[in-house]
Amino acid sequence: MQRKSFGNQQCPVGRSLERVGEWWSIEILREAYYGATRFDEFQKALGIAPNMLTRRLNSRVEAGLLRRRRYSEKPPRDEYVLTGIGRDFRSVVWSLIAWGNRHFAPEGASVQLVDRETGAVADPVLFDRNSGRIMTPREFRPGPGPAADERTRHRLARAAFMPQEAMP
Amino acid sequence: MQRKSFGNQQCPVGRSLERVGEWWSIEILREAYYGATRFDEFQKALGIAPNMLTRRLNSRVEAGLLRRRRYSEKPPRDEYVLTGIGRDFRSVVWSLIAWGNRHFAPEGASVQLVDRETGAVADPVLFDRNSGRIMTPREFRPGPGPAADERTRHRLARAAFMPQEAMP
Repeated sequence: MQRKSFGNQQCPVGRSLERVGEWWSIEILREAYYGATRFDEFQKALGIAPNMLTRRLNSRVEAGLLRRRRYSEKPPRDEYVLTGIGRDFRSVVWSLIAWGNRHFAPEGASVQLVDRETGAVADPVLFDRNSGRIMTPREFRPGPGPAADERTRHRLARAAFMPQEAMP
Repeated sequence: MQRKSFGNQQCPVGRSLERVGEWWSIEILREAYYGATRFDEFQKALGIAPNMLTRRLNSRVEAGLLRRRRYSEKPPRDEYVLTGIGRDFRSVVWSLIAWGNRHFAPEGASVQLVDRETGAVADPVLFDRNSGRIMTPREFRPGPGPAADERTRHRLARAAFMPQEAMP
């Protein structure tokens, strides 16, 4: 169903969303970032039915964002730990937090990103590590990569000169 | 349904996802970033049924990510343009592109973020504009904001010392 909704297999957004799965998936990852590893920890935090939680944890394992780790032999028990791919998804979650706080927190932020040492509040923006510049739509745009097919190249070429794409 | 899946109303991720809506919403925004403003442009790009496209465009207007702009009086015709909130969501989409390219493009990237002038490929990371540092989970974490309630403060305090949260 995710796959169907992103016709262009070359679209990296589509590919990413296929792996992320449904929105609830981000809740599972959020609890993992908060330190949950065991089934009962996820269940206590999310308050969903065991069979549903099992399905959701399994789907995150299949997507490669969590992996099982045996923590008890008898009885056999697995916990769920973040993979590198799952940990790296934090950058997307943090972008969502920043966007939400910028626009949907009229009463002030309830959760914000802070420096672990000083507690200083961060102002997260996308930054290009190659050129050392903050990435504004005025200066950056999506472009074809080495693996781009004709359709992708055509779409991106058209898009490059679109007014909205150029808006700040 | 989005609302139900994010119990804690204080969670900015939940709030953001409520506004983003379903995954298909990101496809609509992607086409808007690519310059689509008129109904037939969205339809040509997405190839979905008119009644479904109408519902989806309307839901993006209600969520505040697109707004209607009258471009013809007779016959009356509106186009859909990005709002500031909608344009700003690009930071989340670009984070998804970067994450997807890092992990799910074994044959190389098909779409990548490039410098508009030079075409140089960007390496997007989250950056704290306040401290001028790249935001790693080792140095940054989610913390309570001014509007945090007791439950949120408790969860974040517990999370602060969790091993997974501290992983690089």
